[in-house]
Amino acid sequence: MPEPVSIDPADWVCPLPLREMKRIVLGHGGGGILSEELIENLFLPAFGSGGGPSRDSAVLTVASGRIAMSTDSYVVAPLFFPGGNIGDLAVNGTVNDLAMSGAQPLALTAGFIIEEGLELDVLGRIAQSMGKAADNAGVSIVTGDTKVVGRGGADQLFVNTAGVGVIPDGVEIGPERARPGDHIIVSGKLGEHGVAIMSVRAGIDFGTVVTTDSAPLHRLVAAMLAAVPGTGAIHALRDPTRGGLVASVIEIARSASVGVVLDEAVIPVPETVRSACSFLGLDPLQVANEGKLVAFVDPAHSEAVLAAMRARPEGVDATVIGRVVEEHPGMAVGTTPFGTTRIIERELGEQLPRIC
Amino acid sequence: MPEPVSIDPADWVCPLPLREMKRIVLGHGGGGILSEELIENLFLPAFGSGGGPSRDSAVLTVASGRIAMSTDSYVVAPLFFPGGNIGDLAVNGTVNDLAMSGAQPLALTAGFIIEEGLELDVLGRIAQSMGKAADNAGVSIVTGDTKVVGRGGADQLFVNTAGVGVIPDGVEIGPERARPGDHIIVSGKLGEHGVAIMSVRAGIDFGTVVTTDSAPLHRLVAAMLAAVPGTGAIHALRDPTRGGLVASVIEIARSASVGVVLDEAVIPVPETVRSACSFLGLDPLQVANEGKLVAFVDPAHSEAVLAAMRARPEGVDATVIGRVVEEHPGMAVGTTPFGTTRIIERELGEQLPRIC
Repeated sequence: MPEPVSIDPADWVCPLPLREMKRIVLGHGGGGILSEELIENLFLPAFGSGGGPSRDSAVLTVASGRIAMSTDSYVVAPLFFPGGNIGDLAVNGTVNDLAMSGAQPLALTAGFIIEEGLELDVLGRIAQSMGKAADNAGVSIVTGDTKVVGRGGADQLFVNTAGVGVIPDGVEIGPERARPGDHIIVSGKLGEHGVAIMSVRAGIDFGTVVTTDSAPLHRLVAAMLAAVPGTGAIHALRDPTRGGLVASVIEIARSASVGVVLDEAVIPVPETVRSACSFLGLDPLQVANEGKLVAFVDPAHSEAVLAAMRARPEGVDATVIGRVVEEHPGMAVGTTPFGTTRIIERELGEQLPRIC
Repeated sequence: MPEPVSIDPADWVCPLPLREMKRIVLGHGGGGILSEELIENLFLPAFGSGGGPSRDSAVLTVASGRIAMSTDSYVVAPLFFPGGNIGDLAVNGTVNDLAMSGAQPLALTAGFIIEEGLELDVLGRIAQSMGKAADNAGVSIVTGDTKVVGRGGADQLFVNTAGVGVIPDGVEIGPERARPGDHIIVSGKLGEHGVAIMSVRAGIDFGTVVTTDSAPLHRLVAAMLAAVPGTGAIHALRDPTRGGLVASVIEIARSASVGVVLDEAVIPVPETVRSACSFLGLDPLQVANEGKLVAFVDPAHSEAVLAAMRARPEGVDATVIGRVVEEHPGMAVGTTPFGTTRIIERELGEQLPRIC
């Protein structure tokens, strides 16, 4: 396991007390005094106004209607990588899972599984990043849980986030709603997150540093919905994380029993990602992203949606990359830059383990 | 690590396909075809009518009002123990965290972190137990996530559950609401879960098998609330898990700035638990429970609450074990069977690691 690369601003200072400990001990997970000190002196200050994981449960007030619920565990190695760490990744990831159902995120939970011996400084910096990412997304981390396992029982730190969001009335987004004719839009350039992790892990220098694209997408989704109100024009949304673009479009194609045709020549992939993938033998369309979405949109409204996306920083490179067809349901076909077509298949397993 | 003790009914049969694999491989966490097969052939059948972790997020309809949100990660070792396993523990635990705010649980998420090489049969039996526990609690597992880490990156299996529940109008329960005069009630005999784990882990035979008390408590809470409607008589509830009864009452005492006096002679502890704890040097009042609650109740209504508890199987041994006083805020004092008093202190860390 390579050493964590500290890209994160090292501005976290361990507040007293924590009994002048430098590292996590089993007792920090025991529910006694050390657990309380960890919550009160590390998590609560980091999570700020949201209140943080102080109690067994948190109470939220909601209006009647629909809420979305989501969860993701994060096991990324290394914990720190160019542009982010496991903490902000865990916040943005669950925010994005909620956003893909059209929900505006309301609150997150945070569960930590920590290996005995983890430096408190590392945990503090990660918690601080989570607090900042939550602030940035306008969401609160409202409750949490900490478990500690002995040395060798886990690889440093795993983080689970679960979230609740509110789905605005009239919004109906789901993978089964994709239909023939839909335009397929990606919100920006693909492959950065996976290559950022891989470059650190492999210790390979690709000339320039590729940083993760980790970012919250719910405001982009809100802008897309606001551009075509009452039309139901946005049929399906997916954030192409593990498995990349290919897994996302095939999952939607299978859910809706439709076919997908991608114009591979126009899919935006940064040159650095392309050359890194070429070097590593990876398909950039199957590499994970953590701040991009793919949308299946009624063609009569796709121009308006595209314009709204390009008006926001998260969507400035938004591009129509394909369309939905009746043929070959459940499958994706690519038209290559050479004018030929190919069947695009998912990986059986994965190209790149532990990227999120 | 001792071998898992298979107490769970071994009625889980791996459905085809899963490519005739016997063990989890990294690819099961990759978001590709193997991930999909694991979801469709293992998790969805196990989680049954709830729908299971099929998509990135689930949609629930709620009435306007208050919802409770909670999360817990489970790292218990061994995975199987007398009377339960990590799966039903994870379901009941989050149900109970919600119930302690007076909420009736609505939906759970399930996040799995799996060590490469875990037997599919083990995962299947645990998932099946989760489905049964959810059915038994009347709650749905609505979405989930699976990550796989390499051998040595985790200890077999960790499970996170997060949950959402609905708090009935008028119910106001919180640790800060305890007040002098309150009767302190426990719902049953203490210490079984911790001793059940410890007996398996240490390979010690205490004459009889102590089984976990893991059980959902939300129906007991509903019955307690129904016994004293509109009174607000139930001030605080806590399920005494890690840290046991002592941690729970001290946490409430600290939150409400009140003192706690426990009558140690009447606290119900099974003889098997008492002798096991004596042998192991543990304090039974600090051993974890997974199917018990402690309630702080207005003394004018405690008899009605107690009667309602005793009318249910989860509360048949409910007993008043102490009272709240103005003196020594934040502290608990015990009157011993010998008529003396002692200050009851929490552990700094924990008596027993990885019991939940």
